[in-house]
Amino acid sequence: MDMNDIIVKKRDGGKLSEEEIRYFVSEYTAGNIPDYQASALLMAIFFRKMDEEETFLLTDAMRTSGDVVDLSEIKGIKVDKHSTGGVGDKVTLIVGPLAAAAGVPIAKMSGRGLGFTGGTIDKLESIPGFKTTLEPEEFHKQVADIGIAVIGQSGHIAPADKKLYALRDVTGTIANLSLISSSIMSKKLAAGSDAIVLDVKCGNGAFMETQEAAEELATMMCKIGNAAGKRTVAVITDMNEPLGRAVGNSLEVFEAYDTLKGIGPKDITELSLHIAGIMIYLGGKAESPEEGSVKAKEVMESGAGLAKFREMVLRQGGTLDMFDYHDSSNSIPVSDLQEDIVADRDGYVTSIAAQTIGLCSQNTGAGRKVKEDDIDPFAGILLFKKVGDEVKKGEKLATFYSSEKEKLDEAIEEAGGRENGAEGTAFVIKDEKPEKPNLIKNTIGI
Amino acid sequence: MDMNDIIVKKRDGGKLSEEEIRYFVSEYTAGNIPDYQASALLMAIFFRKMDEEETFLLTDAMRTSGDVVDLSEIKGIKVDKHSTGGVGDKVTLIVGPLAAAAGVPIAKMSGRGLGFTGGTIDKLESIPGFKTTLEPEEFHKQVADIGIAVIGQSGHIAPADKKLYALRDVTGTIANLSLISSSIMSKKLAAGSDAIVLDVKCGNGAFMETQEAAEELATMMCKIGNAAGKRTVAVITDMNEPLGRAVGNSLEVFEAYDTLKGIGPKDITELSLHIAGIMIYLGGKAESPEEGSVKAKEVMESGAGLAKFREMVLRQGGTLDMFDYHDSSNSIPVSDLQEDIVADRDGYVTSIAAQTIGLCSQNTGAGRKVKEDDIDPFAGILLFKKVGDEVKKGEKLATFYSSEKEKLDEAIEEAGGRENGAEGTAFVIKDEKPEKPNLIKNTIGI
Repeated sequence: MDMNDIIVKKRDGGKLSEEEIRYFVSEYTAGNIPDYQASALLMAIFFRKMDEEETFLLTDAMRTSGDVVDLSEIKGIKVDKHSTGGVGDKVTLIVGPLAAAAGVPIAKMSGRGLGFTGGTIDKLESIPGFKTTLEPEEFHKQVADIGIAVIGQSGHIAPADKKLYALRDVTGTIANLSLISSSIMSKKLAAGSDAIVLDVKCGNGAFMETQEAAEELATMMCKIGNAAGKRTVAVITDMNEPLGRAVGNSLEVFEAYDTLKGIGPKDITELSLHIAGIMIYLGGKAESPEEGSVKAKEVMESGAGLAKFREMVLRQGGTLDMFDYHDSSNSIPVSDLQEDIVADRDGYVTSIAAQTIGLCSQNTGAGRKVKEDDIDPFAGILLFKKVGDEVKKGEKLATFYSSEKEKLDEAIEEAGGRENGAEGTAFVIKDEKPEKPNLIKNTIGI
Repeated sequence: MDMNDIIVKKRDGGKLSEEEIRYFVSEYTAGNIPDYQASALLMAIFFRKMDEEETFLLTDAMRTSGDVVDLSEIKGIKVDKHSTGGVGDKVTLIVGPLAAAAGVPIAKMSGRGLGFTGGTIDKLESIPGFKTTLEPEEFHKQVADIGIAVIGQSGHIAPADKKLYALRDVTGTIANLSLISSSIMSKKLAAGSDAIVLDVKCGNGAFMETQEAAEELATMMCKIGNAAGKRTVAVITDMNEPLGRAVGNSLEVFEAYDTLKGIGPKDITELSLHIAGIMIYLGGKAESPEEGSVKAKEVMESGAGLAKFREMVLRQGGTLDMFDYHDSSNSIPVSDLQEDIVADRDGYVTSIAAQTIGLCSQNTGAGRKVKEDDIDPFAGILLFKKVGDEVKKGEKLATFYSSEKEKLDEAIEEAGGRENGAEGTAFVIKDEKPEKPNLIKNTIGI
């Protein structure tokens, strides 16, 4: 096979054969096709697109490019959950324990954060002692014993996707439906669960800005998942303001903890019960997603979800001291330096730029700008106002936490300064009370 | 500047600024932009195209990426000539001496052949002793002294084009009007002449298959040349059958020599007088291209053109012995082995596949498959029939020359075997006498 011929075929609108797609993925991963031919093909795909069959084949070629996890030893229908990435999104930390408490085995591999969105693994590592690397036998045994384990994604899962994504990131070839959906699904399908729930975000803090684009992506991913024999459901959710009130690793862990206690913010609680409901349904522990949500609420109210979370922390080597101290004192550990953002006028919060808050949090030290950056587990942002809330001039909108003055200043500058309210600042305040968009916009694949 | 942003801008249909184009060309040539970003941009250009202004800027950025030849010391209007490449195209060897004999200084840098088209430098090097490398002062002095010098293109002319062309060749990004025209014109504009005549081929043996595509390319190149302050004229000519009767290096040199003597094939003679006429006109030695052609015919008939060719050969270290022997014996040197192609039926030659004949010639050893291949100067093909000629079954159509049996066999196989005539062989023979297409289809830029 000649790679130039494959490029020209796609460039001229042709449909790539299974043989061509598998040749490209395997030889590129093996280093036998140079980056410059791969990027030319990716750009040709950007313009000419791939049809469903090509997309399924690309996904499968990437899925099988490395380790494919076998969870068949673990009894029950294992359900995975994936978010396309948002700001303040700590939902995995909540729905995992809720679904596990309802009897659905959760054997989850999660990623680290890069850019303005955080990663579940970084959040869990803010718990002292928590191990995010387990040997496969240990991982399986933990799920068999307590029903849940969350670890970091192994480097051997879908290496083709890893290499292609890094190339797409610097060659203007991210924004293509087939490339995005195959990238996500190749990893999910290699991770061994039997069913998958996808949380596809839309809005200014998400990769897909419009609901239509998010629905298109969700539909394609559900098709890929179902074609591969795994029931896949997608929830389209709003990411025009951060989820909940906490952004930052330890801050988000405590918000997840409080949500499991039943005292979390309304939006996080609503979304968690919705997603956990679908997981419980797909896991065969409820007749419908609605019944699943009812069961999720029961394990939340009974404390069984919280107990499952604490059990997982202990089992993975973490200490519960900070949670116990939090329970008794209602305080949380934060970085040494802090600074408030206040309202510059009376009115209503009409928008909170999720992406800006994500970048602010990254600037405080809670996120990475490049892969090699260290994370400050106690840095981040607490929001005191959400969209629709009334504010008075001078009232506190958010507190930024950091362990370095320079980083704190950068974060405040990113937000538009210490006084927010005008267009262009993180919090926009207007006279009229805004209509608040629905958090859960659609569910696809049920 | 961020290369990914430049890729995305073009991908989304934007117009690149002068700063962006110059940044890309200079940093790519310097090795600071990786091939994989360059190929992604080239593919985006393939789909989104470049407008005239972008194309001019790209040409200029490549033109100035290396040495820009200064011929200002040489008196008179220096005229360059370029062919987009055909099979049997030895026109430069004829029009250079004709124009020089008419008083137009010719300071020409030519290329080597690769693939199925030959290169002027390879042809000249089949003359024993002929030096195709001269120091700049020597080159200038020769043009000042005798009015003509033809040397190989220096490696320092438009290195950006050299690097980009090599990348385009393996990433499916050759076929774009702006990229093709800027590639050719960047080299021509860096080569120092004051005016340029382009011979743009169309047909099955040319890069541009249709006359329309050739005209579009010719028009763009004339615009680029004129925008850069150099009068540029393009001739659109047919390349559906090889030019003349000789294909191969030494074989073509002798055909050029005979054409300068006034006894060359009709097509080569016609095209040479047309192109030389334009060169003489652009060089200020005639009031019109037609008057230029009359002057070209005069120097052909007077023997002044032939004398100029012989003068150039001697001055560049070549020997005239083989030409003198040819003049007295009417024989030419050829490779040791030969094989004829004959007609398998009575009828008229309706087509001679120029590209096939080019590949056959390459197979005999007259051309290179890869850059490193050595050339057999005496290998190649002599055609005895042209399109429109009547043939009898068993009559000789062509003789193939090679110094290796294996190469000769490969060449014959490429032609479709020893008997030609059927569809799919190099010579197609039918009952009806075909309409012969015009050799000179159009002239653009006068």
